[in-house]
Amino acid sequence: MTTTSFPRLSTPAGPIPLQAPFWNRQRHSSMPSHRYRDVYSRVEVPQTERDWPANRLTAAPLWVPVDLRDGNQALAEPMDPARKRRFFELMVTMGYKEIEVGYPSASQTDYDFVRLIAEGGIAPDDVTVVVFTPARRDLIERTVASIQGIANPVVIHMYTATAPTWRSMVLGREPEDLKQLILAGGRDVWELAGDMPNVRFEFSPEVFNLTEPDYVIEICDAMTALWHATPERPVILNLPATVEVATPNVYADQIEYMHKNLARRDAVILSVHPHNDRGTGIACAELAVLAGAQRVEGCIFGNGERTGNVDIATLALNLHAQGVDPMIDFSDIDEIRRTVEHCNRIEVHARHPYVGDLVHTAFSGTHQDAIKKGFAEHRTRAAAEGREESEIEWRVPYLPIDPADIGRDYDAVIRVNSQSGKGGIAYLLETAFGIELPRRLQIDFARHVQQHTDTTGTEVTAADLWKVFEEAYLRADVDAGIAITSYDTAETDGDSRTRITLRIDGREHTSAHRGCGPVEALAAALEAQSIRIDVVGLHQTSVGSGADSEALTLLEHRTADGGAWSAGRDRSVLSATLSAVIAAANRIRADQTA
Amino acid sequence: MTTTSFPRLSTPAGPIPLQAPFWNRQRHSSMPSHRYRDVYSRVEVPQTERDWPANRLTAAPLWVPVDLRDGNQALAEPMDPARKRRFFELMVTMGYKEIEVGYPSASQTDYDFVRLIAEGGIAPDDVTVVVFTPARRDLIERTVASIQGIANPVVIHMYTATAPTWRSMVLGREPEDLKQLILAGGRDVWELAGDMPNVRFEFSPEVFNLTEPDYVIEICDAMTALWHATPERPVILNLPATVEVATPNVYADQIEYMHKNLARRDAVILSVHPHNDRGTGIACAELAVLAGAQRVEGCIFGNGERTGNVDIATLALNLHAQGVDPMIDFSDIDEIRRTVEHCNRIEVHARHPYVGDLVHTAFSGTHQDAIKKGFAEHRTRAAAEGREESEIEWRVPYLPIDPADIGRDYDAVIRVNSQSGKGGIAYLLETAFGIELPRRLQIDFARHVQQHTDTTGTEVTAADLWKVFEEAYLRADVDAGIAITSYDTAETDGDSRTRITLRIDGREHTSAHRGCGPVEALAAALEAQSIRIDVVGLHQTSVGSGADSEALTLLEHRTADGGAWSAGRDRSVLSATLSAVIAAANRIRADQTA
Repeated sequence: MTTTSFPRLSTPAGPIPLQAPFWNRQRHSSMPSHRYRDVYSRVEVPQTERDWPANRLTAAPLWVPVDLRDGNQALAEPMDPARKRRFFELMVTMGYKEIEVGYPSASQTDYDFVRLIAEGGIAPDDVTVVVFTPARRDLIERTVASIQGIANPVVIHMYTATAPTWRSMVLGREPEDLKQLILAGGRDVWELAGDMPNVRFEFSPEVFNLTEPDYVIEICDAMTALWHATPERPVILNLPATVEVATPNVYADQIEYMHKNLARRDAVILSVHPHNDRGTGIACAELAVLAGAQRVEGCIFGNGERTGNVDIATLALNLHAQGVDPMIDFSDIDEIRRTVEHCNRIEVHARHPYVGDLVHTAFSGTHQDAIKKGFAEHRTRAAAEGREESEIEWRVPYLPIDPADIGRDYDAVIRVNSQSGKGGIAYLLETAFGIELPRRLQIDFARHVQQHTDTTGTEVTAADLWKVFEEAYLRADVDAGIAITSYDTAETDGDSRTRITLRIDGREHTSAHRGCGPVEALAAALEAQSIRIDVVGLHQTSVGSGADSEALTLLEHRTADGGAWSAGRDRSVLSATLSAVIAAANRIRADQTA
Repeated sequence: MTTTSFPRLSTPAGPIPLQAPFWNRQRHSSMPSHRYRDVYSRVEVPQTERDWPANRLTAAPLWVPVDLRDGNQALAEPMDPARKRRFFELMVTMGYKEIEVGYPSASQTDYDFVRLIAEGGIAPDDVTVVVFTPARRDLIERTVASIQGIANPVVIHMYTATAPTWRSMVLGREPEDLKQLILAGGRDVWELAGDMPNVRFEFSPEVFNLTEPDYVIEICDAMTALWHATPERPVILNLPATVEVATPNVYADQIEYMHKNLARRDAVILSVHPHNDRGTGIACAELAVLAGAQRVEGCIFGNGERTGNVDIATLALNLHAQGVDPMIDFSDIDEIRRTVEHCNRIEVHARHPYVGDLVHTAFSGTHQDAIKKGFAEHRTRAAAEGREESEIEWRVPYLPIDPADIGRDYDAVIRVNSQSGKGGIAYLLETAFGIELPRRLQIDFARHVQQHTDTTGTEVTAADLWKVFEEAYLRADVDAGIAITSYDTAETDGDSRTRITLRIDGREHTSAHRGCGPVEALAAALEAQSIRIDVVGLHQTSVGSGADSEALTLLEHRTADGGAWSAGRDRSVLSATLSAVIAAANRIRADQTA
């Protein structure tokens, strides 16, 4: 299906005022919300016609991980040199081509790390390193000193806060005054590094999202002039949502306004740097790219000051999940995660998109049932197309991507607790033990499992399920005095003969049967002792594999209530089956006696 | 400032194709992204003129926590009855008026919990309870049985998956066939509960975001007819993004289309139920409300299948942070968090918006400096306005809300590591010990702290800072042989007399001074022994408070390099000052000797 045009009725935009009967009358809280103002009363937000909501994401932006700078400065324990290096090497391996490596004028560790790269050996030639500096002559000098002799392409990234609150409260400068300070910094950068052919320049008006847009344009245009921006040596203009203050559509409006109004647009790489105070960092980055941003700064799994920088792993995998090459390799996400956790000393949450422990997992019965059917359809389709399962289109319900794409296996996909149904239970038994339960037994067994989980309240593993299964169908828990002592079955020229000795209440009964298989013979032998089994069906499956494999027979017989199940297990298929019949016989006799 | 209209230049929308010199040529990854398709090729997305991007959030929607159902079913260990009850009581206390309490036909625990509410005592009269059921007669019967005799308002929430993949792969039904199944379920609900005056109805076309919009409308309109929706007894139509599959603007387009095209709109409460597979659940909910949604289902701190349901705590506090009453009380967020963590047995992440351990914390020097200035301005403004600090408008940089609004104190706001600067250091010393350092000493001291953190690599506490301070300025670490043995200072009728005995290299020197204060006297006594101190300034502060408080004197004297600091501490202000002078003298003499 492709996009169609839809007719529209006349309902106005915006919420319909709700009737408020007592059942949904929410009360005013005691929260002092009057202390805050919305973004529209804090800064001018362009509110003209916008194009971004109709755009689509079709290619990955330029990614710039800032874990070693913005992420690092937010850690209770910043990275030591070994951790910095390990993280850097991870990023190179993943395919990042532009990496912010530090703030060399602020920390000796960062300075030394830039020198380590400059002295060669750890950064491949095609990796651009970004160094971060404030607009202050002495710090710019130190920054330029840190990159002396470097062979790699370098971006010198200068930032200054530009928003009104920062101007008045922190910097104590009027707009024109601050602009001059920024331009002076820009001139210092150009004077000290303009003639280094491998160096480009980046400017960030910090707290862009609370700065008057036309003031930002005025400064940015002056910077691109000062830094002689050309399409061959473009200047990066990076527009941070330093602190999130509004719904993400507002940021997109702000970015589109810049995209459409900046001078020398073809000589500018428009970059964004969202944070996540409102939990909408991902959305801000995505909508900003729709609005014209070409480059995204963030951290892998979203470390950073306060709630973190935007998570560039989730951004990349979101592209992957809609068919766009992220240009970064996440094929072993757990290894990436181990390295990131080691370096940051902060764990990734169990529900973190794509990488969390629980995110490719389903507990609820309906989800499990759908996933099980989806996996079956997937295997069938791969076979029909004669292609690998890991290559064909992914359509499994409830799982946005194939966990195998990122190096996860299916073990954890379906997990069973008291909210789970037969689908998940059957799936677990099948994947862990190779046991395929017939559908009506799945229903019967799910009741046993639910009793178990309702009592224990805990998750059950495949091994637990197997114990519940043994308890329910395999244990001699119902011994109503019936056992099989011996049997002997033979077939000659199509003539079957079976001799069976039963022990019932301690007394043995031997009988011989001709012209029928051993199960029928056993049923007849039992019936001769007034124990009648009405077999609905027999199912064979196996437990385990190879030399350890055993036969499992699942027998359904009719009862007054509908049907009941018993099972038998043995190395021999025949013995397993006869055990199942004897188990059923004991249960029937016990019910009759009760 | 308010909204203005902006001129527009002629740059086209969408990304500018980038020149790709080698320094930013990202390479294709090995990710099998070809296995996925974007949303536009999976379902029709309304792409007509849209109004939502120009709307604003001005009031809280109706909140419906689904922690006890959708959240609970995703837990490895679902809640036991005690946990369910504790969570329910928390939600009532916070102000939620509509709470999904369970899936009574699927779990005995859930059934029993609904009965507990029905039997009275735990749910206030104005709290609506929602019970969840599939569209199957026997399960609807069990659901209705669970609410027999209940006094509270009840919503019976029926769901069925409607998206094409689910129809074909999971349910095996054609669209018309599925519609009839849903309507049959709807009729069963009406037959069994239509005449219960305290019951309303909710329908969820599960996986709404991948279902053909006009098919959804056809079913929803049939349901609102069947359930006799009126403005007085509205039907809830809940449109889940069961699995996130697209940027959040697409969901907003889908919701706006429904908002504008559903029949009986004034008799419908339009509800959304986003998940978070792409990390954009918050954005989906917010943009959906801009697009006409009136009710949001989600979980407190975002528990739920896979990556979780949308986090309704963050949504509420996002409203708070832009001046809109969330209608829910978060004034003790840590108590809420403790309860939620106890019930879910999953920890909240350190960077989780508003509630995480680190989210009201700043480590970096520039942030700390700005926050410190912001707090000072805040106190000054409160005093000037004669109002409480907790009442006036919040403008502190880098902190989206006052941590005090949600019961957090300022202790953790500023923390110091190797990325921190003088602002944070000064702030910590001031808040922990009441010590106010003069600005030039802050700079000097920050260098000492940085040496310490660069060596240890760990965060420093206020107590650590104090140790570094003692080491740097107070310890007799530089003993160049100068000590003060005794002093005696007196003033009579404006005539000051001081008598001082110094011991230098073991020899005592006593001198008497008139007409000057004791510090000048000591300087003169030292000068007589050829030790010249050029005092730039003296600063007094105190350490500790009350009976334990001591005086701390901070002395800056001129040196060849600019200036140096020493300090003295004593119960007596005078002794502290004289100690500082002696410390400076020792340092000068040591430098001269070196």
